[in-house]
Amino acid sequence: MEIKILKDILGANEQIAERNRRLLDSKGVFAVNLMSSPGAGKTSLILETIKSLKGKTKIGVIEGDISSSMDAEAIGKAGVPVIQINTGGACHLDANMVNNALDSFPLQDMELLFIENVGNLVCPAEFTLGEHRKVMISSIPEGDDKPFKYPLMFDIADAVLINKIDLLPYLEFDVQTFSQAIKGINKKVEIYQVSCVTGEGIQQWVSWLLTEMGRK
Amino acid sequence: MEIKILKDILGANEQIAERNRRLLDSKGVFAVNLMSSPGAGKTSLILETIKSLKGKTKIGVIEGDISSSMDAEAIGKAGVPVIQINTGGACHLDANMVNNALDSFPLQDMELLFIENVGNLVCPAEFTLGEHRKVMISSIPEGDDKPFKYPLMFDIADAVLINKIDLLPYLEFDVQTFSQAIKGINKKVEIYQVSCVTGEGIQQWVSWLLTEMGRK
Repeated sequence: MEIKILKDILGANEQIAERNRRLLDSKGVFAVNLMSSPGAGKTSLILETIKSLKGKTKIGVIEGDISSSMDAEAIGKAGVPVIQINTGGACHLDANMVNNALDSFPLQDMELLFIENVGNLVCPAEFTLGEHRKVMISSIPEGDDKPFKYPLMFDIADAVLINKIDLLPYLEFDVQTFSQAIKGINKKVEIYQVSCVTGEGIQQWVSWLLTEMGRK
Repeated sequence: MEIKILKDILGANEQIAERNRRLLDSKGVFAVNLMSSPGAGKTSLILETIKSLKGKTKIGVIEGDISSSMDAEAIGKAGVPVIQINTGGACHLDANMVNNALDSFPLQDMELLFIENVGNLVCPAEFTLGEHRKVMISSIPEGDDKPFKYPLMFDIADAVLINKIDLLPYLEFDVQTFSQAIKGINKKVEIYQVSCVTGEGIQQWVSWLLTEMGRK
């Protein structure tokens, strides 16, 4: 019984996601659903990407949080259109929330849209939003065991960014073991090591992103 | 309609939690529901606490993860009874899962039971398990903005442990701002700064725990 309800919710979500996708396509906007644990660096990565693509690509951002508008304010200062979704308790964004946000967003002035999901390694993985790519961030301090504990998130990702790579000297984290574990779950995933503090790996990540935009 | 279903689920959970609580009380077991983001250090904290209370308090551990049994294996090596719950996708433990685990657990040999929840700052906050205290870990690399973004978790905690305090020199994190933000949500909460690497603050945390066990 509960399973049936869940199926209905996911089915309805899928339909609205498809509508979002068609809207984005009609406006020529490439959308990335960015997911991670709380504090893994989603907003920092978006800010670094905006900096790196300044004058080259027109970017917009949808910020998802249970409450607060701190991230939207930080993005707004970077001079790109931003809208904050407060889920009011819900542990993930869904396609309907994104649909409402898209309604009031200047999509005609945009080529790349980041949708920053609620910080959560579990539930966001189950809800598609109409995005073209799913990107997840896993940061060094979280430990290299995460693929074993949260396999679905690693399975659905098109790219995994290993963030806070600058902290590697201070923590036990085996990048090779971690990468192998991810590849064991998801053969096709791209993996990049990045730091939003030193800028390491940001160019490689942005190159991948631009290539994928071209492939849309 | 959805809200009604959620209420029913939470109501049923509450009843089973109450049953768990009575069972634990009848066996003289004090239970702590330990919650945090993925990788904040729940298992490491339990291991440090076991070490600190060796020969003084009989401890047992229930490990909650979506998949894998890595944490249970690590705890088992420390020589205490441990049982692994795999939620199979569910983003939090519920009272029924804990009830099943308690059925096959040697409670008569135990004074203190840690229930390590699924790594998630959102959903576990909504489901009581029959525990006597809720403890959350928030680690330095996650950033000092977490109370604004995940207020419920900070609101329901009896104690917040600021873990990985040894990483403070390498990260931007204002302990005072963070602590004030928590107190703004939850006046009565206890806050401890700890490191499972250097051992800093572990004695203070363990003292609090023993005092609370006495107050059960």
